Amino acid sequence: MDITWSNFKKQLPVVCQAIAEADFLAIDGEFSGISDGPSFTTLTNSLDTPEERYEKLKAHSMEFLLFQFGLCTFKYDDVKAKYIIKSFNFYIFPRPFNRNSPDKKFVCQSSSIDFLANQGFDFNKVFRDGIPYLNQEEERLLRDQQEEKRYHTNGASTTCYMYISPDASRAPVVPVIPDDQKDFIDKIVYQRKLIYQTMNWKFPRGTHVETVESPNNERRMIITKVDEDERKNKEIQKKVKEQEDLNNAVGFSRVIQAISSSSKLVVGHNMMLDIMHTIHQFYCQLPNDLEEFKSLTNCVFPRVLDTKLMASTQPFKAIISHTVLAELEKRLQMPPFNPPKVESAEGFPSYDTAVGQLHEAGYDAYITGLCFITMADYLGSFLSPPQTHVSVQSDVISPFFNKLFLMRITDIPYLNLDGPDLLPTRDNVLHVTFPKEWKASDLYQLFSAFGKIQVSWIDDTSAFVTLTQTDQVQIAVNISRFAESYCVQKYAEYVAKKDRQSLSKRKRTDDGWMDFERKRTKTQYNLDQTFSTKKSINSVEEEPRPVSPEESEVLKEDTASPTASDAAESSKRPKTETDQAGIYYVFYFVKLLSRARGGQR
Amino acid sequence: MDITWSNFKKQLPVVCQAIAEADFLAIDGEFSGISDGPSFTTLTNSLDTPEERYEKLKAHSMEFLLFQFGLCTFKYDDVKAKYIIKSFNFYIFPRPFNRNSPDKKFVCQSSSIDFLANQGFDFNKVFRDGIPYLNQEEERLLRDQQEEKRYHTNGASTTCYMYISPDASRAPVVPVIPDDQKDFIDKIVYQRKLIYQTMNWKFPRGTHVETVESPNNERRMIITKVDEDERKNKEIQKKVKEQEDLNNAVGFSRVIQAISSSSKLVVGHNMMLDIMHTIHQFYCQLPNDLEEFKSLTNCVFPRVLDTKLMASTQPFKAIISHTVLAELEKRLQMPPFNPPKVESAEGFPSYDTAVGQLHEAGYDAYITGLCFITMADYLGSFLSPPQTHVSVQSDVISPFFNKLFLMRITDIPYLNLDGPDLLPTRDNVLHVTFPKEWKASDLYQLFSAFGKIQVSWIDDTSAFVTLTQTDQVQIAVNISRFAESYCVQKYAEYVAKKDRQSLSKRKRTDDGWMDFERKRTKTQYNLDQTFSTKKSINSVEEEPRPVSPEESEVLKEDTASPTASDAAESSKRPKTETDQAGIYYVFYFVKLLSRARGGQR
Repeated sequence: MDITWSNFKKQLPVVCQAIAEADFLAIDGEFSGISDGPSFTTLTNSLDTPEERYEKLKAHSMEFLLFQFGLCTFKYDDVKAKYIIKSFNFYIFPRPFNRNSPDKKFVCQSSSIDFLANQGFDFNKVFRDGIPYLNQEEERLLRDQQEEKRYHTNGASTTCYMYISPDASRAPVVPVIPDDQKDFIDKIVYQRKLIYQTMNWKFPRGTHVETVESPNNERRMIITKVDEDERKNKEIQKKVKEQEDLNNAVGFSRVIQAISSSSKLVVGHNMMLDIMHTIHQFYCQLPNDLEEFKSLTNCVFPRVLDTKLMASTQPFKAIISHTVLAELEKRLQMPPFNPPKVESAEGFPSYDTAVGQLHEAGYDAYITGLCFITMADYLGSFLSPPQTHVSVQSDVISPFFNKLFLMRITDIPYLNLDGPDLLPTRDNVLHVTFPKEWKASDLYQLFSAFGKIQVSWIDDTSAFVTLTQTDQVQIAVNISRFAESYCVQKYAEYVAKKDRQSLSKRKRTDDGWMDFERKRTKTQYNLDQTFSTKKSINSVEEEPRPVSPEESEVLKEDTASPTASDAAESSKRPKTETDQAGIYYVFYFVKLLSRARGGQR
Repeated sequence: MDITWSNFKKQLPVVCQAIAEADFLAIDGEFSGISDGPSFTTLTNSLDTPEERYEKLKAHSMEFLLFQFGLCTFKYDDVKAKYIIKSFNFYIFPRPFNRNSPDKKFVCQSSSIDFLANQGFDFNKVFRDGIPYLNQEEERLLRDQQEEKRYHTNGASTTCYMYISPDASRAPVVPVIPDDQKDFIDKIVYQRKLIYQTMNWKFPRGTHVETVESPNNERRMIITKVDEDERKNKEIQKKVKEQEDLNNAVGFSRVIQAISSSSKLVVGHNMMLDIMHTIHQFYCQLPNDLEEFKSLTNCVFPRVLDTKLMASTQPFKAIISHTVLAELEKRLQMPPFNPPKVESAEGFPSYDTAVGQLHEAGYDAYITGLCFITMADYLGSFLSPPQTHVSVQSDVISPFFNKLFLMRITDIPYLNLDGPDLLPTRDNVLHVTFPKEWKASDLYQLFSAFGKIQVSWIDDTSAFVTLTQTDQVQIAVNISRFAESYCVQKYAEYVAKKDRQSLSKRKRTDDGWMDFERKRTKTQYNLDQTFSTKKSINSVEEEPRPVSPEESEVLKEDTASPTASDAAESSKRPKTETDQAGIYYVFYFVKLLSRARGGQR
């Protein structure tokens, strides 16, 4: 169901109802762009740390607009033994709601826009009829403005309570009236007083005064004869109207608030950017610190599941070769998987996966939900007794909770929202700095003695070089000591140095940090209130603990080693990162099976 | 006539023909936004110098996209005694044309998008079917790539000639083949050679080899049996195809190139931003220096006329109170003006000014042209004998050539593209610096002894304060010498200090500047070629000369002095600039009349 500004108010209760009754929700966002860097590789280096990846996405992706949000709610019907779905396709646009509203700017990336255009995306629905939104800070500001307005209106004076100035925090200005204008002002003030006096004398039963603004921004004072009851009624009407205006301005953020406070499982596919954009656009500015971001995400989306991560993990990894959403959906329709039975709720149009409407957010959310159900049910087949339907409460899916897929990082498959991230040693990796003039060939030449290498460019003068054998790392470092033009260090040394730098940097900017903290706390007011029973923002362990043996159990990738043609291909594109995956994956399935075999559910 | 990518190639000759036969052209652009600053006032201070205004527009407006370009051509038909018009409405979008094309990003401003949406603007036409474009640098790069490709294809090897890397200027990389892959590569190279040999032996009459790319980016080599003639034909076909690809990629820029090389008079309304965007988007990056910009504009648009400046200048100023395009158009339909007779050319839909389609670029261009004709004809009525039709060659309009209206600058009405700008003394203006905490009221208080003042904010800690009487300036400066919290200097002193600073800054960055110059010269290659007979870029006088008495003849504004209610209003909005115009206008009309009465035409 398409939801635009035209039908938003009418359909909002339907949306909230669907969320409230659902077993789980699937979401998907479409953005006006992905990366403001020179290319997508600006965002991804295969040896990024989770911190670095988060920083890159924050720096290079958040200026774009999330302008279509897909929500598909899934409710299991025990009688029919199938999921009943309700799918919504929201069009979103930061429409200015009045003359004081923030005039937001956002970036568009041609390739993304062109891609969506080719999919038949309706830009007019976004720009002409998109649903507005406010983040929590903006909502608070608007609420404050309304209260201040009410305070002043009820008080003695009706002086200016709102104005636009380069620094909006300044207090209203007391006008200084030049001598030659004093008579004029005095006369006007006198006349105004006279009108009020006459009004009170002529209409002793009372009057109601309100200021209305015409469509062409002219402001008029409307005075109505009323008795006390009518006056009170008018006041109440006014309050209701104000509340409605506020609700209108908050707009789509109310849907996200409903999702958030439902605490339902939220399923997405490769959902890191979806989550970052959603928080950034509808809640608050993203924090600089990754741990902060994790806590914030836990507050906004207490339980998430990423189907791309799920499909890339055993036992699925062994039988699913492509995890791009469309490919995954196709693969999951074939054995050993059983496509689930779903049915659109009454009044909701049903999607036909045979024709598909890929990259419409509502449809993508729907497909994502289907993939999740299929994979969950597949895990159920390993239980004893086997289950054909696995509920979202089942232990077989809980290992996938709160882990976000990390694109193209070879040895850290996911961002762990519930604790510290995996910490691979990367002891076969070198950090190399070199002159700007160097090409990829120079690096291959330099390390030619060590056999096959992988180069991951950081910038024009540095790169990671991954050697095949760990014991050659020390040799490479030793040799480099005689070199003047380049410098080689072990990955661990590089990271340690970088951590020291960022620590001292953070200390230096302490004030700014505390300032941010203070602001954030304020912004999180509603969040904290809503989730006071849940893990508080500061309760996450800050100290990195050693990775448990279970978590660090990794598998070598099962595809054949890259062929020479891959090497030739990568040498043709010297500075794009090599896509070859190296070491792979946390093996949850061991845990899953042992649990499943041991007991109930 | 709407022109999108679907009909662009078919209609381009029609557009070029219309330009070639026209007496003059009217243009208008619609942008995805105006200012990336906190508000529109970021762009305008009523005491900006032309240099400052240009810098502000360049810094805060160029990230937006010119996505609709209106062109209306006007050709006078002597027999019918009316103008025949052809109006075009181009939809423009930086569509990526192949996998190597630049992935452009642009900013959208909610208020601008919302404004256009309310006018019924069709965003789908832009994003789904917009015409692509390249600037001159990009066109040159693409041409070079094609030539390099051709060179390599004709040469011995077919190695990689194009690739994407963080630094595209690097040379192709010689692949270093690891030992364990050498056999594999040797075998492939041998097999390839074998295929070529067999081909030459099997098909002695000759073969044609070409690489084609399928829609899903797979590349295949196609080998066709051909004799010598066929081979040559194929080569020619290929060249034609490449030229076509290039033309397609250059896209809308070809329309601007046609306008430019026609040297026709280009009329716009408040056209500074239109010109800046047009050059920025379709020619080259805007220079940092205003003089450079003027020279560049002279090359791209040798003759321009701004109807907003015309309407704000005598004799029109005295009888036209509003110069906003829609208001101006209405006013010019009433006496003493005679609305001109115009007719749409055959096959072109005619606009109805009664219903209007304001803010569609093609319509706005049309209206702008009408306004120009009406005002020009009005000037003709003062000639002896009076003329009902004034041609674009007439002396009565030449004083308005190459002067761009400067929004909201009270004492410098226009940017003079043909020489130095007006240099008002501003000897009743003070530059004041003060603590961040100061409000407008503090400034009004401080200068309350001097009667009515005007405050133009520069930033949080400085402002211009305009006094009513020049002789009080020295008193204010004298008093300030005893103050510690604020600092007052005369406008002239402030400017002198600023000029010294910018001069030393420019000296420091000399290398960067020369680097830019070098780049610009390269980029301007086509421009310089096209306009070699015109004023060369460096021929503009660099030394500011004193303003001639004729030019500096200014008139006090003829509206009543601002009332006290204005003062109260401006004190309510402390940091927005006061809109009240102070001193006004160069009085061309004196010159006009004296010329007109003196002579022929």
